[in-house]
Order: sequence, then structure tokens, then C-alpha cells
Amino acid sequence: MGRTRPGDARGKVLKAASTLFYRDGIHVVGVDTVAAEAGVTKAALYGNFGSKGRLVVAYLRERDRLWQEQVDEITAACPDPRERVLAVFDAYEAWLSRDGYRGCAFLNATSEFPDPADPVREVVRHHKTALHGYLRAQVTRAGEPDGLADELMLLLEGATVRSVVTQDAEPFRTAKRLAARLIGHQPA
Amino acid sequence: MGRTRPGDARGKVLKAASTLFYRDGIHVVGVDTVAAEAGVTKAALYGNFGSKGRLVVAYLRERDRLWQEQVDEITAACPDPRERVLAVFDAYEAWLSRDGYRGCAFLNATSEFPDPADPVREVVRHHKTALHGYLRAQVTRAGEPDGLADELMLLLEGATVRSVVTQDAEPFRTAKRLAARLIGHQPA
Repeated sequence: MGRTRPGDARGKVLKAASTLFYRDGIHVVGVDTVAAEAGVTKAALYGNFGSKGRLVVAYLRERDRLWQEQVDEITAACPDPRERVLAVFDAYEAWLSRDGYRGCAFLNATSEFPDPADPVREVVRHHKTALHGYLRAQVTRAGEPDGLADELMLLLEGATVRSVVTQDAEPFRTAKRLAARLIGHQPA
Repeated sequence: MGRTRPGDARGKVLKAASTLFYRDGIHVVGVDTVAAEAGVTKAALYGNFGSKGRLVVAYLRERDRLWQEQVDEITAACPDPRERVLAVFDAYEAWLSRDGYRGCAFLNATSEFPDPADPVREVVRHHKTALHGYLRAQVTRAGEPDGLADELMLLLEGATVRSVVTQDAEPFRTAKRLAARLIGHQPA
């Protein structure tokens, strides 16, 4: 009753960090703020993550995991590779309607971490390679050339950053319409 | 002889801020660092810009001015609207080969300034509206539908952020090839 279970502090810190880093940016949020928001001591934060840098990496890995879950849902729901591609565009658009949408956490982290050798940038590359790989797998299954996956990637990334600037969903709709034309999707 | 001309401090601060903000990010660079890099006192920095926020706005306005100069050069060099569009993609790719390329200063600032009402975000919208307007003007002159400018915008923005992640020019080449197909450009 009321006792902190082992692992609780880690989960609380990660949840608080995820909220604050995504909402406010990474460099402006100090570990004191994260610890306070999580309701744990700074010692507990460092005991679980070692450093702010590692906490940032953990934050992005967790987002990548949640993204992978969404992709798995799309894969399960859509047998057709062309529909899967379009469902990815829909998923990104749906994400925009959530409170506090700030675009892609990985691209935002890239803006904040200039050194391509930083471990943060390694997680970004891992995530973007996974996204690109998913699109390429669908393109291959649909019998289309690999290069189409590169084009779809540009449309998805372009719509994501543009939607933050314009604060509306139109870039995703434009991107999806063009994606549908490029993959030769016949509307049902 | 050796005397500081009026306006010198302002120019020095803006130059130092532009280098540091673009290279390292905005929040991590303090006004002390900017003043030291510029070789002026902090009082001179505040005397010219009033606040860090206003210095950030001045930094982005200056980048927008330089970008507008590049666009004017493209306009003067290419009479054909389709060639102008492709020249914009070339200009963005050429920019990548410069030392310390970090993608779009305006998108990076968007990542760092979450509040859409922030004056920084106002400069970002101004710049992106100008870019979109330039593309739309060329699309209209080429007799193509307005929507094509939205698609070109996604390709350009997508290639910009993707090139930072992948650290190579391929996204710009993919974007330009697709842009050329979309605008029905016949290679000379």
C-alpha cells in the first residue's frame, strides 16, 4: 500500500521526460524539472538513466517502440501493400489531431543535436531506417521499383514538417493523394 | 583608424549569432557566448537587439533576406518557370555541400520554439509562405494547377530534413527527379 514498486521510478521518469521533451524541446528541459514532474528524486533519475543524454536516448527509443506498435497494427489490419502505405499517411495525419502535436520527435531531436555522431542521432537513424524499410517492403510487395519508397519517404517527411509550420492537416492529404497516384492505387 | 563605426556592433553580433545559432542550435547558445564571439560587450548586444528573442528574429530575417537574394538570382538566370523550379532544388542541394550544413534554419527554429504564436514562428511562416508563393507563381506561369506547388513544397521540405538525417544529397536528387516528372519538364 503506497510503496513504490521496483521499476516504478524508471517508468515515471520516462513518462515525464517524454511529455516534457516532446512538448518543450530537449535542451530547455533540465533533469530537475523531469525529476519534479515524475515525482522522484534527482538521484533516482540518475540511478535509472545515468545521464540526461541516456534519458534522451531512452525517450526516443520508447517513441520508436510505440511507433513500431502502430506499424504492426497497420500491417495486421491491411493485407494489401498499397493500402498499408496509405494507412501510414493516415496514421501520421491522425497523430496531428492529438493535443500538443509538435511533429516528429526524431526530426525535432535532430534539430537540437547537431553532431551526427551523437547517440541521439543514432536512434534517429535507426527509426528513420525502419520507417523507410517498411515503406520499401510494401513497395516491393506491390511490384514497384525501390525508388518509389524514397519518394514516399520524402512526401511523409515533407508533410510532417510542413504540418507543424502550417498547423493543419492539408500537407498530409496532399502527400497521401500524390502517394496514391505514385503507387497506382485504385480507390475501392 | 581602429575606431568602431556606428552599426559595426550590430553587424558583428548578427554575424556571430547566425553562425552559432545555425551551428549549435538556439537555446544552447547564450547571449554571453554571442557577445564574446562578436567581440562586443553584452551591453552593446542588448543595446542593438533588446533581447535574445529579438536577436533570434533578426537572425532568421537575415537568412530569409539571403534566401530571397538566391531566389532573385534564379529568377534572373532562368526565364522558364519549369527550369526555375528545378533550379530551386539544385540550390538547396548545393547548399548541402557547404561546411556545417544543418538543414533549414527555419525548420530547426520551429523544433526549438513550440509556441506557434512566438515571433520566431511568425518569421518561419513568412519565409515558408514566400517559398511556397515562389513555387506557386512558377507553377501558374507553366499553366499547371496550384496543387502542384503544394506537392513541390512537400518534396523540397522532405528532401531538406531527410538530407540532414542521411547526411547525403540523394534526397534532393530523388526530389528533383520527381519534381521534373510532375511539372512535365522535358530535358533539353
